[in-house]
Amino acid sequence: MAVVLYDLVGKGDRRFSPHCWRTRMALAHKGLDCEARATRFTEIAAIGGGCQTVPAIQDGERLVVDSWEIARYLETAYPDRPSLFGGPGGEALTRFVQSWTAAVLHAGLIQLIILDIWQHLTPEDRDYFRDSREKRFGRTLEEVQAGREAKVEDFRQSLHPLRMSLRDAPFLGGEDPLYADYLVFGAFQWARAISPFQLLAADDPIRAWLGRCLDLHDGLGRRAPGYD
Amino acid sequence: MAVVLYDLVGKGDRRFSPHCWRTRMALAHKGLDCEARATRFTEIAAIGGGCQTVPAIQDGERLVVDSWEIARYLETAYPDRPSLFGGPGGEALTRFVQSWTAAVLHAGLIQLIILDIWQHLTPEDRDYFRDSREKRFGRTLEEVQAGREAKVEDFRQSLHPLRMSLRDAPFLGGEDPLYADYLVFGAFQWARAISPFQLLAADDPIRAWLGRCLDLHDGLGRRAPGYD
Repeated sequence: MAVVLYDLVGKGDRRFSPHCWRTRMALAHKGLDCEARATRFTEIAAIGGGCQTVPAIQDGERLVVDSWEIARYLETAYPDRPSLFGGPGGEALTRFVQSWTAAVLHAGLIQLIILDIWQHLTPEDRDYFRDSREKRFGRTLEEVQAGREAKVEDFRQSLHPLRMSLRDAPFLGGEDPLYADYLVFGAFQWARAISPFQLLAADDPIRAWLGRCLDLHDGLGRRAPGYD
Repeated sequence: MAVVLYDLVGKGDRRFSPHCWRTRMALAHKGLDCEARATRFTEIAAIGGGCQTVPAIQDGERLVVDSWEIARYLETAYPDRPSLFGGPGGEALTRFVQSWTAAVLHAGLIQLIILDIWQHLTPEDRDYFRDSREKRFGRTLEEVQAGREAKVEDFRQSLHPLRMSLRDAPFLGGEDPLYADYLVFGAFQWARAISPFQLLAADDPIRAWLGRCLDLHDGLGRRAPGYD
């Protein structure tokens, strides 16, 4: 029986949640069949079980909420499948990659694509998104995204730890990807789903890694609707 | 027989190299006796064996140069001692922590303490340091360090991935430290050795982790001459 992933969706079946993408890649990494069930922001409460955020997965009788809890659950429940962490040290340091992804990558990206997200939401979700995000930023979505052509330079600079790490190996996980790669990939997949804005310079070596990630698991990421 | 660590030194036996500190902590983590041999910048060439940088270690007949090569050597040569990486995933992701340490932590720190370093060098090393660093920055040491009271705010902000990771565990490595902790600790130990400047706000939770690191291995870091 396939694992159900409650997967955030916008207009035109755009799957744009970075947190859902990391889970979707983790399920594929474990070789599990996945039904990625399209879920709008305003439908999350209807998942039940007290679930208030996505991703959430239903694996048989078990509902697991929160991407990190899901990753740990999958690693424990499917120990004979390829590891997401590559051992206890890998699991611990994956938390650092996750923290960097949140504090640097997501925090930088949101200011470049927040209006693009809104434009790709269904009408039911637009008010919720605008209200909650404008309250968080204390500015309109238009103001947050303004001037992105200049701001993108700082964003590109902030990716340098990623760029350096990829000098010596094809993936953050080494020769093969680990969950840490999916954490970072999820952020780029977020942008790809809903924004035509060019995040990376044409000669950025991160592009080669991104291409490898898009090809993983029979092109799971590349087949999803988005901007290329 | 103790492993010899060629360890960068300034005036008053200040051991200030972040790269040497990560190696010194790694040797202690492996439970190896270490003779940390004081080495000035201008004495590095005399180590021999083509060595041009420190840290370098002499373990019996074997000379190993470069902190990453040393860490890998120790993990391979002493597999029955506590692991520096916690498995293959840990080793791969340690590279990401190392990249972040170089690109964010060291790059930020050097601009806050570069003149303090010069002031703590022996007369023999001062000209070498000033010439090579002023060429690299295209400015005087005084100009690079100027305005640090304002710049430190950005530096503190840039530490947020570290801060977030330490919310859930006492060390980056989890319940116990791994080499990844020593990478980051080395940067703070660099500053501590030669600078009275307050890097962290009084209420920064990173301080608790730093205290734990200073206490490790019988207070190896805390016993070293420095500013507290």
